[in-house]
Amino acid sequence: MHFRFMTAGESHGKALIAIVEGVPAGLALDAAAVDHELARRMQGYGRGARMKIEADAVEWLSGVRAGESLGSPIALLIRNRDWENWADVMAAEGEGEVRRRRVTRPRPGHADLVGVLKYDRLDARDILERASARETAARVAVGAVAKRLLAECGVEIGSHVVSLGGIAAKVPTPRPLLLNAAADRSPVRVLDAAAEARMMARIDEAKRAGDTLGGEVEVVADGVTVGLGSHVAWDRKLDGRLAGMLMSIPAVKGVEIGLGFEAARRPGSAVHDPIESGPALDGRGAFRRYTNNAGGLEGGMTTGEPLVIRIGMKPISTLMAPLPTVDLVTQAPAQAQSERSDVTAVPAMGVIAEALVAIVLADAMLEKFGGDSMAEFKRNQAGYLAALGARWTSLGEG
Amino acid sequence: MHFRFMTAGESHGKALIAIVEGVPAGLALDAAAVDHELARRMQGYGRGARMKIEADAVEWLSGVRAGESLGSPIALLIRNRDWENWADVMAAEGEGEVRRRRVTRPRPGHADLVGVLKYDRLDARDILERASARETAARVAVGAVAKRLLAECGVEIGSHVVSLGGIAAKVPTPRPLLLNAAADRSPVRVLDAAAEARMMARIDEAKRAGDTLGGEVEVVADGVTVGLGSHVAWDRKLDGRLAGMLMSIPAVKGVEIGLGFEAARRPGSAVHDPIESGPALDGRGAFRRYTNNAGGLEGGMTTGEPLVIRIGMKPISTLMAPLPTVDLVTQAPAQAQSERSDVTAVPAMGVIAEALVAIVLADAMLEKFGGDSMAEFKRNQAGYLAALGARWTSLGEG
Amino acid sequence: MHFRFMTAGESHGKALIAIVEGVPAGLALDAAAVDHELARRMQGYGRGARMKIEADAVEWLSGVRAGESLGSPIALLIRNRDWENWADVMAAEGEGEVRRRRVTRPRPGHADLVGVLKYDRLDARDILERASARETAARVAVGAVAKRLLAECGVEIGSHVVSLGGIAAKVPTPRPLLLNAAADRSPVRVLDAAAEARMMARIDEAKRAGDTLGGEVEVVADGVTVGLGSHVAWDRKLDGRLAGMLMSIPAVKGVEIGLGFEAARRPGSAVHDPIESGPALDGRGAFRRYTNNAGGLEGGMTTGEPLVIRIGMKPISTLMAPLPTVDLVTQAPAQAQSERSDVTAVPAMGVIAEALVAIVLADAMLEKFGGDSMAEFKRNQAGYLAALGARWTSLGEG
Amino acid sequence: MHFRFMTAGESHGKALIAIVEGVPAGLALDAAAVDHELARRMQGYGRGARMKIEADAVEWLSGVRAGESLGSPIALLIRNRDWENWADVMAAEGEGEVRRRRVTRPRPGHADLVGVLKYDRLDARDILERASARETAARVAVGAVAKRLLAECGVEIGSHVVSLGGIAAKVPTPRPLLLNAAADRSPVRVLDAAAEARMMARIDEAKRAGDTLGGEVEVVADGVTVGLGSHVAWDRKLDGRLAGMLMSIPAVKGVEIGLGFEAARRPGSAVHDPIESGPALDGRGAFRRYTNNAGGLEGGMTTGEPLVIRIGMKPISTLMAPLPTVDLVTQAPAQAQSERSDVTAVPAMGVIAEALVAIVLADAMLEKFGGDSMAEFKRNQAGYLAALGARWTSLGEG
Repeated sequence: MHFRFMTAGESHGKALIAIVEGVPAGLALDAAAVDHELARRMQGYGRGARMKIEADAVEWLSGVRAGESLGSPIALLIRNRDWENWADVMAAEGEGEVRRRRVTRPRPGHADLVGVLKYDRLDARDILERASARETAARVAVGAVAKRLLAECGVEIGSHVVSLGGIAAKVPTPRPLLLNAAADRSPVRVLDAAAEARMMARIDEAKRAGDTLGGEVEVVADGVTVGLGSHVAWDRKLDGRLAGMLMSIPAVKGVEIGLGFEAARRPGSAVHDPIESGPALDGRGAFRRYTNNAGGLEGGMTTGEPLVIRIGMKPISTLMAPLPTVDLVTQAPAQAQSERSDVTAVPAMGVIAEALVAIVLADAMLEKFGGDSMAEFKRNQAGYLAALGARWTSLGEG
Repeated sequence: MHFRFMTAGESHGKALIAIVEGVPAGLALDAAAVDHELARRMQGYGRGARMKIEADAVEWLSGVRAGESLGSPIALLIRNRDWENWADVMAAEGEGEVRRRRVTRPRPGHADLVGVLKYDRLDARDILERASARETAARVAVGAVAKRLLAECGVEIGSHVVSLGGIAAKVPTPRPLLLNAAADRSPVRVLDAAAEARMMARIDEAKRAGDTLGGEVEVVADGVTVGLGSHVAWDRKLDGRLAGMLMSIPAVKGVEIGLGFEAARRPGSAVHDPIESGPALDGRGAFRRYTNNAGGLEGGMTTGEPLVIRIGMKPISTLMAPLPTVDLVTQAPAQAQSERSDVTAVPAMGVIAEALVAIVLADAMLEKFGGDSMAEFKRNQAGYLAALGARWTSLGEG
Repeated sequence: MHFRFMTAGESHGKALIAIVEGVPAGLALDAAAVDHELARRMQGYGRGARMKIEADAVEWLSGVRAGESLGSPIALLIRNRDWENWADVMAAEGEGEVRRRRVTRPRPGHADLVGVLKYDRLDARDILERASARETAARVAVGAVAKRLLAECGVEIGSHVVSLGGIAAKVPTPRPLLLNAAADRSPVRVLDAAAEARMMARIDEAKRAGDTLGGEVEVVADGVTVGLGSHVAWDRKLDGRLAGMLMSIPAVKGVEIGLGFEAARRPGSAVHDPIESGPALDGRGAFRRYTNNAGGLEGGMTTGEPLVIRIGMKPISTLMAPLPTVDLVTQAPAQAQSERSDVTAVPAMGVIAEALVAIVLADAMLEKFGGDSMAEFKRNQAGYLAALGARWTSLGEG
Repeated sequence: MHFRFMTAGESHGKALIAIVEGVPAGLALDAAAVDHELARRMQGYGRGARMKIEADAVEWLSGVRAGESLGSPIALLIRNRDWENWADVMAAEGEGEVRRRRVTRPRPGHADLVGVLKYDRLDARDILERASARETAARVAVGAVAKRLLAECGVEIGSHVVSLGGIAAKVPTPRPLLLNAAADRSPVRVLDAAAEARMMARIDEAKRAGDTLGGEVEVVADGVTVGLGSHVAWDRKLDGRLAGMLMSIPAVKGVEIGLGFEAARRPGSAVHDPIESGPALDGRGAFRRYTNNAGGLEGGMTTGEPLVIRIGMKPISTLMAPLPTVDLVTQAPAQAQSERSDVTAVPAMGVIAEALVAIVLADAMLEKFGGDSMAEFKRNQAGYLAALGARWTSLGEG
């Protein structure tokens, strides 16, 4: 079984749409929980006017009945509230109005130029509408479904900002138990009050300069079952699947697992997490780690320790003080088009990354445990954990 | 069309095997070129005894005739020369001898422990044989086929080490035209002679201490066609596909594209690559970049600039001075099993990464250009480039 | 490149939804053409009341602008006009009303019983809503997009009924050039007036008896490019891909290509189509067939001759004179639930089969020719055909 | 989890190769069982000289240790014993000898002509080697692994010939319990002694005439778990997956499930299998069918009744009295090339079809039950069956 999905939708089109397939029947789902994640995605100091226009709300078009999944494909619709202002420009049919406001000055850093060349278009709007990070709203909605599935198995996923605009935050040790509860209280989703103030000042400054800012986020998944993913085939390794999904977030340029690049600089004796014995724990038999430099993944499989991933996002490509570009029509130097935009989307990026980690984990759990109903899915997981406990404990007694 | 492949094979089994499907008919192939890449993978100061035993050579089992691909699946066989020493332990059938030398002290950092739990095994050898980085030899062979395909379209892929054991190398600007020619001359595949000496000393030191070292590698692909990958769907974005493939290399814990995490720290005005006009170039119309902070990817598509990716590898998990672990049978504290191993595999990792980048690019080219014969594949590519040139030039004249 | 799609939607839910990905940019699309196919699917003597309620109309939610595809995923929405009558029973949230009218007497022949067991449900409505053939409306809409793509390359797909309720129709030789123009004139989509009358009488008779009827349909694709599909891998063989897609239509129990089972009864000398030489034809070089027993497929590839496929459909599973079943609650003998239904859907099945053949062919063309824009896609196809012509003609002159 | 595989290998190349991935760890495997299936594939009255040369034997290259699967990819090698006679013609490298014996007179009915056009080759051997039905030996080996997996869950798959060369066999009611034991005793794998004699005479006659014969086979799977496959998505429907796989067998032109085309001719009341109540059975709760016109599939899912599928195979395309064709070089009329061939391969086709049905069922079981070890896989299946029994029985008592 797999957690499959496709998304569709342009940034100023009628709506974003996603179809998700593979969710077992009987999962309790409510739109409010999805909307909560969509709202979190729109948070963050440094967002522009659009975020105030859109108050994203999901509508179930299929696959959910009486508050439960049916096992059939779940279609989610998120209307673009901005659509009414764009209906003439984005209309599906009727050529008259549409082509009036062509975008011909591609923004460096965005898909505009390459997209126009690849898809043989004359209007960069034909590209930028889909390349926009607005698409991530659909993935956050899909991820909210995945999060619900995982929550039934005790998996909790959170995130926080660890650097923004070049300002690094201190990461508390240990992390707060309820990571998102803590991070969501901060306008920049950071756990370090001093850094928070400096980050906000940096955002104000960048706004004045018409510039944009990037940053880094840490995503943490707790309660992950040991043994998800696999070492046996390159495309089943969970580290690769996570990195592939996360690097597909617009503007993300780096992904690290556990110590990440820091692991590349230390000797092995200061990297690998010793295995220790101790009283049997659920799902991990009698094995313990007291460090987690691996970030919860060894050999492409989950170790049962928290999954810890960091991702780096470049600054937004649309600057209010536009960058030099070329006009596609005249091919003369020009200033890049300015779509209304944010100064930074780093706080939102953590929410997106949480959703994507949830999707990959849900997929890996369905792969391992199968199950067409929630009862079956959970029974299979429980059976695995019980067998792990029984086997490795009794061995220990031998 | 896609460039599909599967690999199989245990580290001390009879052989590694790969099946590749999607290569157009009529591609000139010779085993020597594959063997050259396999030999490069075994190079590097800091490798252990095994590298001297194996002199990997590929055997075409199918899909190649008279020095040309047939369009049918290409099966590649790489015999494990060490097999004769392991035949009793690794025999496919007959239980007698096999289980004599069980591995019960899992190595921290390796797949040993998680694998044994997930797959319900009592002998970690059942896991470690497949989790071993020896599998990458099969992928290097597959990548050598992809490299040949790309070479026909003018794509060249190279790599060099940029840090090893915590010692950073200076990266020359511009990079040498023949990157591998330069890097392969160095025992640690580094372009900075001073760093080279220090790295080798560090390796010697680690060897004496029974420790291991990681490092970072930069992979560069030149001559890449503009417009590979796509912004339209999360699973077609080339940055995600590259990161997913590269993070699946055993021991890789970080992947960066272009400026990578550094891009997260700079303002947008110092990150995005301005678009400039100039005389028309093959395949890029009249558009120019004078910087390449994006590393050749915007919106999940190739820009036509060199693809530049950095990956970070943790130290090898098998230490000659073994780490603390638990014995699976007694569950008492123990020292991890010591398989014969290397001090570092960072120089080899660049070769592996080249192969994987080649595979992803070959797949993206087949996706865009289709083609069952080399003539058709190349004709389609040439037609695209010619149309790009014609269209954007004439526009410029309008 | 592939023509990928997912569908979603329950029969009495809000809507059917499909997302299609892989359509090149620049394909002219209009809703009217899709609606025309949707209307054809609802035609046919023997349909019930539902067909009068629904007048299916597609709404583009994404991927289409100014009457052209953008290259991005195309989301199609078909509202269920019946929804307002079912909103209480099918509501996504709020458990109160929903469960009032449970379906507990599963219909033999339908997914009801197996679905309830597999998905652990107590209400067969949770299954039958998705298992309903209404889902095929979404696939017909997707197929209408595929048909538009194929039409640009000269491929035309039609169908007609060859047997209904046990009455066989004479198939004219040769088939009418405009197959659908002819078939759509008949209330049962048959090309034999005498059989038409008898079929309609049989339908009336079955209706009176509360019974249902099946039948057989022939689908024909003209103008198919030679060399689609491939012999090299089991999952690329076009005969398998066509059969797999067609057997997934609800109620289809048999698929034949060309002579089909009749080919199994004749000697080889009366089956295989001799190859003859003649003046060069577009896309086929100088080779001719004067028979087409193969139905346009040899070795899992298109021969360039018309694709001819027959499919057999069992009678509808919902009988007004219900079949014996068991009540899921009491487990006592009962009569199967009677949802409002048709006497026969064989005429519609041809329309569905056309759509699915279009999807498979569009996928096979994108696989072979790639192309992100219609210009590129068509240029690649034209280049292939021109090369075929040039090569085999010049050889002939040698 | 999925049962994935790829095959490779030319008919007169060195070997056939397959890689299978997804088999849980701990499945007992022995080469003898695979070889038994390979031998069955070579049986059958009417086979030519080649079948005497090849005595196929599988060699495990990976994934199996001490008689058990490891969970890692299983690579299987079947050497072509004929290879030594073909080494000069089929050599992978060195152009000298290879092109001496070009095949330029394509056989009607085979992939020869289309393949040469599609892949831009001058020698039809470059096509026919892979298009040959010899490839099915690799799939039979893969299927033998799938059969072993299924046998652990009580699934048995057999087949018999129901028509050959136009002679129909009577099918006994009920079928013999050990279907293959009965069928394998017959030189033409038929259960009707009178038909057997006539079929053999027909084969002798066809041989004298230089002609070839096709036929029909019935495949039956007993003990199939209820609820495999799914109604929720077109590509998860098991009827489509089975038909797609079976139609990909070279020369198969028709596939029917259960009553098949006969179901299209009867009224619904004489087709659908009434559901009756009775004492609870393992895995089916308290539900019974006394007919199986559906052939074990409703709504794209297994009903728990035997899976019954019929496939029709056209006669072999290589006739000793060759068919008219065109010479590719001269484009003048010619007689088709005669590779050494069989009069009929219908008895073998049943063995191939068994293997493919096993593959599809194994895949569907892994999809539903997941499981990385045999213990886990079987525990999950048992849990499902127990829950089915418990739930529907207690309901019945309510």
